[in-house]
Amino acid sequence: MLRVQVLGEPGGDNALFVTADGGQGLTRLLLDCGGRTVDALPLGEVQQIDHLLFSHLHMDHVAGFDAFFRVNFERTARENHLWGPPGAARILSHRFRGFWWNHAPDLRGSWFVHEVGEGTVDSFRFEAHEAFEVQHEAGRRPHDGVILSTPQVSVQAVPLRHQGVSLGFILREPERVNVNAAALAALGVPGGRWLAQLKAGVTGQLDVNGVLHDAAELRARPLQSEAGESAAYFTDFLLDDAEVQRLAPLLRGVQTLYVEAQYAPADAALAARHHHTTAVQGAALARAAGVQALVLLHVSRRYDPPAWQAMLRAAQEVFPGARFPDGWFRGT
Amino acid sequence: MLRVQVLGEPGGDNALFVTADGGQGLTRLLLDCGGRTVDALPLGEVQQIDHLLFSHLHMDHVAGFDAFFRVNFERTARENHLWGPPGAARILSHRFRGFWWNHAPDLRGSWFVHEVGEGTVDSFRFEAHEAFEVQHEAGRRPHDGVILSTPQVSVQAVPLRHQGVSLGFILREPERVNVNAAALAALGVPGGRWLAQLKAGVTGQLDVNGVLHDAAELRARPLQSEAGESAAYFTDFLLDDAEVQRLAPLLRGVQTLYVEAQYAPADAALAARHHHTTAVQGAALARAAGVQALVLLHVSRRYDPPAWQAMLRAAQEVFPGARFPDGWFRGT
Repeated sequence: MLRVQVLGEPGGDNALFVTADGGQGLTRLLLDCGGRTVDALPLGEVQQIDHLLFSHLHMDHVAGFDAFFRVNFERTARENHLWGPPGAARILSHRFRGFWWNHAPDLRGSWFVHEVGEGTVDSFRFEAHEAFEVQHEAGRRPHDGVILSTPQVSVQAVPLRHQGVSLGFILREPERVNVNAAALAALGVPGGRWLAQLKAGVTGQLDVNGVLHDAAELRARPLQSEAGESAAYFTDFLLDDAEVQRLAPLLRGVQTLYVEAQYAPADAALAARHHHTTAVQGAALARAAGVQALVLLHVSRRYDPPAWQAMLRAAQEVFPGARFPDGWFRGT
Repeated sequence: MLRVQVLGEPGGDNALFVTADGGQGLTRLLLDCGGRTVDALPLGEVQQIDHLLFSHLHMDHVAGFDAFFRVNFERTARENHLWGPPGAARILSHRFRGFWWNHAPDLRGSWFVHEVGEGTVDSFRFEAHEAFEVQHEAGRRPHDGVILSTPQVSVQAVPLRHQGVSLGFILREPERVNVNAAALAALGVPGGRWLAQLKAGVTGQLDVNGVLHDAAELRARPLQSEAGESAAYFTDFLLDDAEVQRLAPLLRGVQTLYVEAQYAPADAALAARHHHTTAVQGAALARAAGVQALVLLHVSRRYDPPAWQAMLRAAQEVFPGARFPDGWFRGT
């Protein structure tokens, strides 16, 4: 299950806090970290965030970093991973060093920054005990779009155009393989260790309680695959026809799209100039991609609440299921 | 008039927002900038802060800097001045660079960082249009303790011991010179331009409507001097007997002392080890200095509210006027 919480207020900075719950364990992701976003989370949740992924490092996406970092800078109970576009390591190295670290030699805590390039991830390591002064190279590896996988969730990065790169993120739970009890009974063989092997993807001949069976044949019957939940977060990006054509196929099959609605439809020229997206353009992308649900966020404070509502209605004309995050405009 | 507002909550980061109002103009000072401190101020006030003075750059004193900086980074309507102990420019240069500045060439805004050393101030300048990448030297000048003077207020810096330097700040309005109307009438000379000259400090012979008078003699009668308001902010520092002896004379004549009360009296050993101050030690300094009022702040969240109240009572046994900031523990 993917639990997605939009942090921050309408007109303020926004971020996504995602808990991927596989039943056996959790992965907690924070997507962006604008001002006053982390403040909404219980301290205990912030302490357990596994990965902080930045779309890019403009002020309104990073100004809450101190609130995250001060909770975790000497964390050793889990690894510390930050992600962003090329150039992120240099900018984050400045953030690490924006404090007086006179007690650094007594500190522990290693921090990894992963820069997501086209086809490669470049990683760097920073050490609290070095007062974060050294940017250690920590390897380059190829990626096929998916930059990160845990048992609970995979993250695909999509470069978006923002006069530079803003990363979009697509989160997918792994496919779930369930056992159909009726089909198992019809098969006439008792359950056992072979079921776990089958779920794990074993091929060829499989020993079922002493008798060999073809794995593919068994798999076709008692096992049922079910797509996991999925969500995408696209913010701060140019969205013209060419970009819709490029991005919609990538979003195919995604359940919920969280997309910026920075500008009103009437300000499309302004949105294009600043490489931002209007509420209607986001809805058009959702429709072209065939997503199930659309959540609009990152609305500009240049508009007032009635204008935001008008932006939502305009989006709903293109994608009827468009909505604002839960809790926004409560009681209005 | 000095209006002093303590920002932040008990157990959280604190800062002081000071408005020095001379009747003809205002100087706005922010002393420290911990997390969630600036959030309490109206945006219009943050936009008009003239000087941000850091005691030091530990996390809990600088983690709100983004909230200040994002409002003002391209400010040209007034100068941008930051102050701190030696090393502040390097740390703040990292803070300036902790963002993606791809639009830097279009930005304006110059930022000065002043490092307060023993007897000298070293200044550095950073430019928004350079993406804050260059630390320009901007001069060294001597100081006699007073590092900053405006028509409304002067700031004296006092180095405190915090395993390194934490700066204490003493703020004083200039002496006010008032005209006593009755004394003026008794003098038998009509008012005029000479009064303004006298208030400005002219010496020797003064032309009073065509007749020469001795300035000192005139000053003794219609003019009355009145000390301006004053306040001191001392936080994050070791306070032993030697330090009380060193600091109390510097605070003589100060009206209100805002002092950290990080530790409970029973934890004096811990306070000494970490170069912090207990509530009772702060009260002892207030008593030795003969200040009129004492406000305790920066209480540690290691204690609960009843413990904080006990710390206040212990301080009041030493300095009866000790209190917490207005608005803390309202209704308790």
